[in-house]
Amino acid sequence: MVIKNVNLAFLKSALDKTEVNSALEWINNQNKAVNVSVKKVDFEKLEKWKFDQKKGCIGHDTGSFFSIDGIRVNTTLGKVGQWDQPIINQPEVGFLGFLVKEINGVLHFLVQAKIEPGNVNFVQLSPTLQATRSNFQQAHNGKQPKYLEYFKNATEETVLIDQLQSEQGARFLKKRNRNIIISANDNIEVYENFTWLTLGQLKSLMQVDNIVNMDTRTVLSGILYGNYNKKAINFSSVFTPQETYKSMLLKSALSSEGCFNSLNRIFSFITDLKSNNDLLVKKIPLNVLKDWIVTKDEIYHKDNDYFKIIGVEVEISNREVLNWYQPMVEPAQEGLCAFVCKNINGLLHFAVQAKLECGNHDIFEFAPTVQTLTGSYKKTPKDSLPFLEYVLSAKKEQIVYDTIQSEEGGRFFKEQNRNILIIADDDLPQELPENFIWMTLNQINNLTQYNNYINIQARNLIASIPFV
Amino acid sequence: MVIKNVNLAFLKSALDKTEVNSALEWINNQNKAVNVSVKKVDFEKLEKWKFDQKKGCIGHDTGSFFSIDGIRVNTTLGKVGQWDQPIINQPEVGFLGFLVKEINGVLHFLVQAKIEPGNVNFVQLSPTLQATRSNFQQAHNGKQPKYLEYFKNATEETVLIDQLQSEQGARFLKKRNRNIIISANDNIEVYENFTWLTLGQLKSLMQVDNIVNMDTRTVLSGILYGNYNKKAINFSSVFTPQETYKSMLLKSALSSEGCFNSLNRIFSFITDLKSNNDLLVKKIPLNVLKDWIVTKDEIYHKDNDYFKIIGVEVEISNREVLNWYQPMVEPAQEGLCAFVCKNINGLLHFAVQAKLECGNHDIFEFAPTVQTLTGSYKKTPKDSLPFLEYVLSAKKEQIVYDTIQSEEGGRFFKEQNRNILIIADDDLPQELPENFIWMTLNQINNLTQYNNYINIQARNLIASIPFV
Repeated sequence: MVIKNVNLAFLKSALDKTEVNSALEWINNQNKAVNVSVKKVDFEKLEKWKFDQKKGCIGHDTGSFFSIDGIRVNTTLGKVGQWDQPIINQPEVGFLGFLVKEINGVLHFLVQAKIEPGNVNFVQLSPTLQATRSNFQQAHNGKQPKYLEYFKNATEETVLIDQLQSEQGARFLKKRNRNIIISANDNIEVYENFTWLTLGQLKSLMQVDNIVNMDTRTVLSGILYGNYNKKAINFSSVFTPQETYKSMLLKSALSSEGCFNSLNRIFSFITDLKSNNDLLVKKIPLNVLKDWIVTKDEIYHKDNDYFKIIGVEVEISNREVLNWYQPMVEPAQEGLCAFVCKNINGLLHFAVQAKLECGNHDIFEFAPTVQTLTGSYKKTPKDSLPFLEYVLSAKKEQIVYDTIQSEEGGRFFKEQNRNILIIADDDLPQELPENFIWMTLNQINNLTQYNNYINIQARNLIASIPFV
Repeated sequence: MVIKNVNLAFLKSALDKTEVNSALEWINNQNKAVNVSVKKVDFEKLEKWKFDQKKGCIGHDTGSFFSIDGIRVNTTLGKVGQWDQPIINQPEVGFLGFLVKEINGVLHFLVQAKIEPGNVNFVQLSPTLQATRSNFQQAHNGKQPKYLEYFKNATEETVLIDQLQSEQGARFLKKRNRNIIISANDNIEVYENFTWLTLGQLKSLMQVDNIVNMDTRTVLSGILYGNYNKKAINFSSVFTPQETYKSMLLKSALSSEGCFNSLNRIFSFITDLKSNNDLLVKKIPLNVLKDWIVTKDEIYHKDNDYFKIIGVEVEISNREVLNWYQPMVEPAQEGLCAFVCKNINGLLHFAVQAKLECGNHDIFEFAPTVQTLTGSYKKTPKDSLPFLEYVLSAKKEQIVYDTIQSEEGGRFFKEQNRNILIIADDDLPQELPENFIWMTLNQINNLTQYNNYINIQARNLIASIPFV
């Protein structure tokens, strides 16, 4: 099926108001039908995995999947110039893909109810396809993921989005996934754990804790709804979100004019930071990481901060029983990601932070206004982090959403972070701290199309923004 | 001075037709006034430099400037999956900057007649400023480059362009420079080796061999002349280049509509290549590089191909005498960089190649249609490289320009490459070989604004395109 005006088709789907009760019930039933057991075990009990004491890393016997490595980080930025940490090394690019088709004129996404061992509630809504490069490149394979052939046989006409997107720079070493959306033909079969939902429905479901998984959120964040000047579209007459703040967000997503900072200014801002700062990352054995303690079943920081590396045995029983072992990352606390927006010259702007993270591909990426994944935001002195106090003391009417979302359940053990979007009062000063810059939603969406500009935490907050 | 419409100001300057005879005479005189001697010497004679036999690299005593390292490259692309080579490692970002100001309503660039030891003709036109990060960050320093303070005191209003641009991926390990253009105020002093030239004049001078240096060409390549739809501008009436092909090139630079491939399609093309191919680069000592021979005064390939590492003693005498030693890269032969363009649906499109080079920041960058810097194009079998025969047998009326240009004279010893731009006849098939894609000049110019998309060879060809 050829979608003629891709951006407009996405927009129409995002503005769909169909209720989500039946979808919630469907996930609930999927969750009841499954038993998941995740038990912590010693590293030496991890079948098919080996803690190589000589190399100082944890890897799979086949050399595939991923490894847990140690790194020493040196940077010219901030107060802490050097630190050590474990990191997930997963160099192979994976595929996160959605099939979409028009049903009654509205684009629907083929969503999978997928079990992941690390998820708090096990079953969450995931993309149609999660595949490894090996899955993708092999011509024939005994056990291929469902719908893989649609992605393999994609043509120029059916590819709506195809982007290489970064993942958590504090936990992954330069990991990127291929985020792809493909239009399917009408007669596509829908398997048991799959269902069609509109973008509006998915955005509604993101207003609920832990329903839409991280992989779905990152793929949806790559969607561009179009670039309009004031003359081309009269927002208030064409689209009629009920609440004022939703129409403000929609306008910020669609307007290519009236931005406080030009694209040139944004480039200069990030060029300056990248030119004047270094990020040097060197692999070192896990056993010699400064301030980290390795025991038979854990690698943890001496202050019990940040995260731990653990080993788990997973058993999933549904119609068939699956059993495997793997290392996982267990966070030390719940993190916080928040965007603060402000009306500037009649257009909503987001306070974007340029953030250096050790696993970044290109030193800095644009991050949310507040991002505290590596330390507890509840313990952090409120005045030590820009905007933290502002976010935590926001009035109810300023909060667009405030939900708990899970990180990727295949690598992270019960990691949930609080996601908040706040529209500031006029009393918030327009002047920003160092390393912050104002962008419209349209500018963020456009930068997302290019490699290594918008980080995953920012993208996932953006994906959750409701327009209706 | 605040330039109101930056893109239009650049365009107006590019369309300036002022003659260049006096500029050529000026460079000629600058060249006569200087004596440059470059003598090859043994590595052990390189004062302040050391060939560290244990680490297997050549470095400066201070650890600054650059080093010559050995690397082992593994890639999944092409017939040769693994190779070793020496490479220039220069991690610190340098500054390449132009000051501009309006003279009689036309933007002029402050150009320096700069001596570089590697240049065939020693003096070439360079940017106003070439500075190291140390120059830039230090508050006060005994000997600072001229005009540095203008760049240090630049404000949001005066920065017209500020980009991090890659350099030769086959010779430099992830090297990038900050390319910056700043508007100066009216009363700026012009020192002896400096002069004001319009962009049109600089483009005219690029039609002559070895006059405009590589640093100038890369900075000018970052200029965007604006994005216009068909309604917004009537090219033929506003701008009147004399020759048809120049008006075709101008239209390709300015038109944001009518592109054969959408931006989405270009992203998908490069995402596919980056997702399915690996580039692994590991440092190894120079002494163990496979197929490379280390002698007391050279590191060369066993087939005498590619390039050599040599040591030189440089003596420049002008008003004062300067003398220093350094390693340099000497090419084995003259290379060839060519773009082939074709009229598609009334708009000129460029055949762009996605090229993997070992020093690339992000695996692939977009390169010219033909790029043979690492082997002799005269020895290469013509049918082994797409478009090589087409370029070499082009008719005179198809050739927009065909000049010899120097690579950076501070690192490369007498390296010159042939730069060609060809507008193909209608008989050239529209179908492209694998890893090639059609782009308009406007698309290339826009991609140049983002990090790590357009490689330096492509950018430098683009910079040389004359519009009048």
